[in-house]
Amino acid sequence: MKLKINRFLKGLAVAITLFVIQNAVGQGHPSLVLTKKGVSEIRSKLGKVPLFDATLADVKAEVDAEIALGIITPIPKDFSGGYTHERHKKNFLIIQKAGVLYQILNDKKYAVYVRDMLLAYTKMYPTLPLHPQTRSYARGKLFWQALNDANWLVYTSQAYDCVYDFISASDRDKIEKDLFKPFADFISIGSPQFFDRVHNHSTWGNVGVGMIALVMNDAELLDRALNGLKENGLPPGMKDNDGGLIKKEGQKTGFLANVDEPFSPDGYYTEGPYYQRYAMYPFMVFAEALQNTKPELKIFEYKNGILIKAVYALLNLTNSAGEFFPLNDGQKGMSYYSRELVSVVDIAYLFGGKDPSLLSIAEKQGRVQLDNSGMAVALAVKKGLAKPFEKKSIDLSDGPEGKDGGVAIIRNKNKGSELTLVMKYAAQGLSHGHFDKLSFSYYNNSSEIFQDYGLARFVNIEQKGGGNYLKENTSWAKQTIAHNTIVQNEVSHFKADFETGNQFSSKKYLYDVSNPKLQIISATEANAYPGTKMHRTMVLVEDEGYEKPVLLDIFQIDSDKANQYDLPFYYGGQMMSSNFAYETPKTLEPLGKSYGYQHLWKEGVGKATAENTKISWLDNGIFYSLTSATKPNDELLFVRLGANDPNFNLRRDSGFIIRKKESQKATFVTVTESHGSYSPVTENATNAFSSVENVELIYEDADYVAVTIKNKNGKTILFIIATTNNSSTDKHQIKIGETTYTWVGTHYKTTN
Amino acid sequence: MKLKINRFLKGLAVAITLFVIQNAVGQGHPSLVLTKKGVSEIRSKLGKVPLFDATLADVKAEVDAEIALGIITPIPKDFSGGYTHERHKKNFLIIQKAGVLYQILNDKKYAVYVRDMLLAYTKMYPTLPLHPQTRSYARGKLFWQALNDANWLVYTSQAYDCVYDFISASDRDKIEKDLFKPFADFISIGSPQFFDRVHNHSTWGNVGVGMIALVMNDAELLDRALNGLKENGLPPGMKDNDGGLIKKEGQKTGFLANVDEPFSPDGYYTEGPYYQRYAMYPFMVFAEALQNTKPELKIFEYKNGILIKAVYALLNLTNSAGEFFPLNDGQKGMSYYSRELVSVVDIAYLFGGKDPSLLSIAEKQGRVQLDNSGMAVALAVKKGLAKPFEKKSIDLSDGPEGKDGGVAIIRNKNKGSELTLVMKYAAQGLSHGHFDKLSFSYYNNSSEIFQDYGLARFVNIEQKGGGNYLKENTSWAKQTIAHNTIVQNEVSHFKADFETGNQFSSKKYLYDVSNPKLQIISATEANAYPGTKMHRTMVLVEDEGYEKPVLLDIFQIDSDKANQYDLPFYYGGQMMSSNFAYETPKTLEPLGKSYGYQHLWKEGVGKATAENTKISWLDNGIFYSLTSATKPNDELLFVRLGANDPNFNLRRDSGFIIRKKESQKATFVTVTESHGSYSPVTENATNAFSSVENVELIYEDADYVAVTIKNKNGKTILFIIATTNNSSTDKHQIKIGETTYTWVGTHYKTTN
Repeated sequence: MKLKINRFLKGLAVAITLFVIQNAVGQGHPSLVLTKKGVSEIRSKLGKVPLFDATLADVKAEVDAEIALGIITPIPKDFSGGYTHERHKKNFLIIQKAGVLYQILNDKKYAVYVRDMLLAYTKMYPTLPLHPQTRSYARGKLFWQALNDANWLVYTSQAYDCVYDFISASDRDKIEKDLFKPFADFISIGSPQFFDRVHNHSTWGNVGVGMIALVMNDAELLDRALNGLKENGLPPGMKDNDGGLIKKEGQKTGFLANVDEPFSPDGYYTEGPYYQRYAMYPFMVFAEALQNTKPELKIFEYKNGILIKAVYALLNLTNSAGEFFPLNDGQKGMSYYSRELVSVVDIAYLFGGKDPSLLSIAEKQGRVQLDNSGMAVALAVKKGLAKPFEKKSIDLSDGPEGKDGGVAIIRNKNKGSELTLVMKYAAQGLSHGHFDKLSFSYYNNSSEIFQDYGLARFVNIEQKGGGNYLKENTSWAKQTIAHNTIVQNEVSHFKADFETGNQFSSKKYLYDVSNPKLQIISATEANAYPGTKMHRTMVLVEDEGYEKPVLLDIFQIDSDKANQYDLPFYYGGQMMSSNFAYETPKTLEPLGKSYGYQHLWKEGVGKATAENTKISWLDNGIFYSLTSATKPNDELLFVRLGANDPNFNLRRDSGFIIRKKESQKATFVTVTESHGSYSPVTENATNAFSSVENVELIYEDADYVAVTIKNKNGKTILFIIATTNNSSTDKHQIKIGETTYTWVGTHYKTTN
Repeated sequence: MKLKINRFLKGLAVAITLFVIQNAVGQGHPSLVLTKKGVSEIRSKLGKVPLFDATLADVKAEVDAEIALGIITPIPKDFSGGYTHERHKKNFLIIQKAGVLYQILNDKKYAVYVRDMLLAYTKMYPTLPLHPQTRSYARGKLFWQALNDANWLVYTSQAYDCVYDFISASDRDKIEKDLFKPFADFISIGSPQFFDRVHNHSTWGNVGVGMIALVMNDAELLDRALNGLKENGLPPGMKDNDGGLIKKEGQKTGFLANVDEPFSPDGYYTEGPYYQRYAMYPFMVFAEALQNTKPELKIFEYKNGILIKAVYALLNLTNSAGEFFPLNDGQKGMSYYSRELVSVVDIAYLFGGKDPSLLSIAEKQGRVQLDNSGMAVALAVKKGLAKPFEKKSIDLSDGPEGKDGGVAIIRNKNKGSELTLVMKYAAQGLSHGHFDKLSFSYYNNSSEIFQDYGLARFVNIEQKGGGNYLKENTSWAKQTIAHNTIVQNEVSHFKADFETGNQFSSKKYLYDVSNPKLQIISATEANAYPGTKMHRTMVLVEDEGYEKPVLLDIFQIDSDKANQYDLPFYYGGQMMSSNFAYETPKTLEPLGKSYGYQHLWKEGVGKATAENTKISWLDNGIFYSLTSATKPNDELLFVRLGANDPNFNLRRDSGFIIRKKESQKATFVTVTESHGSYSPVTENATNAFSSVENVELIYEDADYVAVTIKNKNGKTILFIIATTNNSSTDKHQIKIGETTYTWVGTHYKTTN
């Protein structure tokens, strides 16, 4: 991705910074997530707003239980998942809540708890060496990585803000001098490779420093938080322990740079939704704090209101159960029920125009942030203002200027099932990116039809490599073959080289969802394999003759030499049938030696024998069929994940690969149906068979490709797309067989 | 299983039969599931009983939609799952409902529909040859197996009963002469290998014939239904196409024999809960019909009220989600939400003493049977009479006299999780039985900790072998290695020979749940391997020092020669850690050549290196750990199902096998913990590590075995069981090390 921060934005950033610094003088306390005015409002409404009251009761019970346990600040020792890690993590989450409870309930026991906890840390912190675990590129003191120290500071600053006036001036001096100031210095000046970067880690670092700067009214620290270090001494090209690049030449840093660069104008965060979720909390809570202390800054309007847009982007990047699409390094199951999303939805509601559709998300979450924003949400919910949050098809650009490809989400709600196509044609996604150009995943409600593997990591589970990234994340999860996209000659895109991949992005060719029954995303990739061009067009077609919409996938690849092309589809559940002969080997061998191929067992090997290759499977009570227009020598492979996995770190997932050998140019045309159902209770199987009779690539030249999908009753869908002219107004004419087709715009479709 | 029908019961059966035959004279219509009196009661309450009204509305909508489609009776052609099969199946389900709607709603359109459907079948039936699919040992005419023809008759009889008075006498003559009489003759006299047997198939046949006999007032047919054929000409030893024995010497047959023999006095049906569910509908609906026509027979009191007991047994044979334990050939997911259970719960309520706990099941089911029993249930629910159905630990004997072993279900509800041990020490289970002596499965709520594989069949899914049993059902699912029990020398129990297995059952040694914190099932098996005795003791122990109860498993095996013993544990989810070194082969080979071993891939091979072998895994958000007292040369195998599975008929499930080689006598002592949790939303892992420090077999002689379980804090549980004396009053004394233990009863336990 190229670094092209809009000059206007740069200027604005500088202006805001100066303004903030000049005005960061005493606001009184609390002033970050709570304000004096907000607190008195909240107190006046206690007992009258169910969602707020329920959250308050839960939080009070949780904090009271911890207070009963006493202050526990063990000497840091463990990785995430281990005792000392989890204890210190719990401490910061709890004292933030205790601080808030002190303000809301006006009960001194909470202030005492926060104060005593802070004093305990104040006593311990100056004695702490670097954390004994050495794996991180930026070790912390309380935690094995400075990132978690920064988490601590973001939450603890809020707690301190809440009890600031309660603590004696002499205690405050001690706490600031021995704890907060050196803490903020350590994670910034002391850890430039962590702090002075564009990365979700740095965002936490910036915000931690910025939050404590606001509480302590420290203009120098605030400048550091907003604009990064003046001088960091880092060598360009330095990498972190996930292989991510730390320093690029001329890189701007600090909070504002972290808003400018990773977010696209549509609010997509280039690392992907899992990390966007993680980073959104510090982004939004710091924005809330800036808004509360400096409303005249209009931080929520910065870069055209990018922070609010980002919350919407994130909500759209979920399946029907609210789970984020696991793009790049994303852990499956993370969802908008997470604490981060509770906070950011509330903040986005209050500071983003009080959109009633956000209230329906808050209702599902069933809890609110215990601050002014949470009270605003809970009040509005009580008043019955909530409206459904309708997730529609959306195309989210990637890159600071929206020019580095993107992620298209195409949805069709139909007879109780929401089919969702997620097509990724984005930039690399920084250090958490996968080599998965033009890949896609496909959902039926929250059930994965074709999955994105996600990451190879068990976050915070100590047994699994301390909860950190496993080596299979690099050897499998990031590799191209782990995704539903083409691999050339068994080598990953960009040869799996991060620096190379990081320079390029795929490009949008066409996104058109104007016709809800014919929604199209089409994108190209020219750099993943030098000399090879890829163009993938995916169409979600709702048409008579099919129970539910079908997914048409036209993947064209064209190289300057002959290659082998593999296109995998990672399906789940149980194979039902296939229409070709295959062998199941008596002993299983890995499919290849490297680039992830070493992790796949070759469970079945066949050859296409008909014009069409078809497999059907049953997953979560729904039948699916894939029909592909194959050629007689195409190889068909059933694969199973799990080879070369000595620690059982990988799931035993299944895939189907269509392999075209010795081809310079090849086009994969595949139709996927979702059909029928099976219940083990009624034991009824309905519509268990594919309705596709035939899929055919009927025409292809340098400028057009045309396919037909014929169903069992003889109804035929014809779809033509111009592949070199994406104007919506140009007129086209081609002759296929004896028929001439004429149309305006990029594509044409008819059913006969 | 030996055929020892109690003489008293035999006499009673004959008496009832004569009585029924002598009294089977005109009751008027309807008289099977509805009665004239019942109908008028129902009509008077319409619109006032929500559960009944809701079901009625659903059924009306369903039937109206079918009536709109018209009468469709295609020429039979397909296997189950195929069009003609599913159409005829739908027809009988719908006309039963249409008949009932006619009575309840008094709307002639339903009677016309039933009449016209019956006339259409009357026209077609005489022309039908045997069904063209030849796979069944007893082909039907409408369906590929006579079983489904019998299903048709059971439902259609009810429809005919409902519209009997509506149809003209001449139409009735035609329908009875050309359809029902020959139909009943065909599935009985014409299919003796199907009808004249003790088997769930025959129950359907008997009941179909019996139901139509009641409607037509045909005493000879009714006698045939109740007592079987006078002469069937079947050769003893004949088998069906599932390998099940059809004819035993001196076998009694007919409905009453099918009540007498497969049900134990506790109501356990020897084929297992999946088939019990399937058979309970005809058992109960025919009993209801007999009760309505001949209340003086007191059929529900027959054999000490066995039919009602059987419903309770069935409800107890479910996990916390109401799903039946998949013992023998059971399809997973089948539950008490099935239509059969709706009917039998309602009938059991009305005719079994109006137990309010059955109402809570009916509430969960959310619908009732549209007859007198359903109205009784719906009314009682409306009155708020429902009480929870509490599933407690239960030991269900097997065999007609309860002497052929059994199934013990041990439950412990604790902190929101219901741990459930299902230990099977039963008889063979007729033709659907598995070779799984002393096997067990183990649940955490509805999640399987250690699974029973169930069957290898996709019921009614045509793509998978016509929805019938797959060959992997025999080669894998029935084999011993597919279960959590010991396999000697890689050969299944009884060499997987049905006739041999069918002669024996395991024997109960001890079932003691008097202490809810120490629930024990202990059983022996002496015939699975001639010359080898097996004794398994399983204890669900709730004790301080463990978050949740732990499962202690002591499996002693003693042979007259040295053997190899394999004890598998089929766990799910993701392996977290193990405490021993193992190799993961570069290519996967099957574990063996036969008896199911050919279906397992050897994914990992290790040797026990410490006194204890431990693995931990994460499944559905819960951590589990297994700790076994192993010896240095014990082999440890990680296996994965799926070898030699050319049609992808098997799931890719995982197992862990402890193998002891060249041992004459061996004792496997294993402790399984359920602990902690992990959420991908909070990303918190709690209590992720095993609390077991050490498991030790500290003492064993011919009469006693003693084990200790030490936790991380040093707390040690000592458990001793006398293995040859299960008296509850005898006094025992043994010396272990320097300590002498004295106690009364079979077992002793202490924690220090």
